[in-house]
Amino acid sequence: MASTDKPTHDSGKLAPESHVSHDAPPVYKLFVLDLSLRLLLFASTLAAVLVMVTSKQTKLIPVALFPTGVPLAAKFNHSPAFIYFVAALSVACLYSIITTLGSILAKSKRCSSKLLFHFALIDVLMLAIVASAAGTAGAVAYIGLKGNSHVGWQKVCNTYDKFCRHIGISVAVSLFASVLLVLLVLLSTYSLHRRIR
Amino acid sequence: MASTDKPTHDSGKLAPESHVSHDAPPVYKLFVLDLSLRLLLFASTLAAVLVMVTSKQTKLIPVALFPTGVPLAAKFNHSPAFIYFVAALSVACLYSIITTLGSILAKSKRCSSKLLFHFALIDVLMLAIVASAAGTAGAVAYIGLKGNSHVGWQKVCNTYDKFCRHIGISVAVSLFASVLLVLLVLLSTYSLHRRIR
Repeated sequence: MASTDKPTHDSGKLAPESHVSHDAPPVYKLFVLDLSLRLLLFASTLAAVLVMVTSKQTKLIPVALFPTGVPLAAKFNHSPAFIYFVAALSVACLYSIITTLGSILAKSKRCSSKLLFHFALIDVLMLAIVASAAGTAGAVAYIGLKGNSHVGWQKVCNTYDKFCRHIGISVAVSLFASVLLVLLVLLSTYSLHRRIR
Repeated sequence: MASTDKPTHDSGKLAPESHVSHDAPPVYKLFVLDLSLRLLLFASTLAAVLVMVTSKQTKLIPVALFPTGVPLAAKFNHSPAFIYFVAALSVACLYSIITTLGSILAKSKRCSSKLLFHFALIDVLMLAIVASAAGTAGAVAYIGLKGNSHVGWQKVCNTYDKFCRHIGISVAVSLFASVLLVLLVLLSTYSLHRRIR
């Protein structure tokens, strides 16, 4: 994206759009894209948390003295990995609300490079947290689905089908949230980059 | 870090250090910091991979027909989570070699903002991959250490102590690598940010 116009830099203030290269997307489009990604992040993290916490399923499991079965529940808080997942995604959800509001407020007085920089910083931390939470929950979900014959860990998804479906959807949505956070960091970095071209 | 000097922007080229604010660290220091972080990333990812692949431990486990015990091995490739971990950390290790060389080569013709931008892009992807790998391996290691009484997954670390020690060290080192990648992304973003102050 080669620029033919002279560079426009006025120490943190945005250049008027007419001065910006015609190849580069205008500031307004970047703002709309940033806002859309943050709203999507809010929706996806909220969905992931809700689907995870509503995954409880109770089944009648036959045991030695009760061949008709004893009601046993599968809940997300039986595994520390899923508790970490809910905590991490809840933080990301709260963060997405704050930055969406911050993004809208900053727009009214034109977005400063300092704000973009701070958003990029916290986005990076959030990305690390959400990606590790997705990995953590995904690993436990995989053992639940397939088991591990080497160490004798039985699969549980043949019994608790609804529970596993919820966990699977939640992990998939959290992976989508990770992709959104990658895009948000790239967008902040690109916005900083295009100002010094 | 308020700058009192006039802003220096010459479209992608670095400003001479004498023109840069005295508060800001000089370009050379940023380059040394970037290079040190990339070398540390190389060392830590290589260490994590080596510690993980050398974790094999064989023990005599008593079974029904052989009360004296049968030799049973615990290996990292018994779990898909650890295989993903080794693959992800190997990619990060290879990437750190490439970017360390790229960083040194770029220094000879002064680091361009375009290169910083591209480094930041791939650093972000690597961060997501390494963080999720650390989460994945950590979750399985935690089940191995503590077990899960709700679903009847037995702990294995009371038997395979050396194996678990290797896994634990490997996960800890990969968390350190994640922190290094966060710092690398922040450094790239900061380098881009300080050019437009």
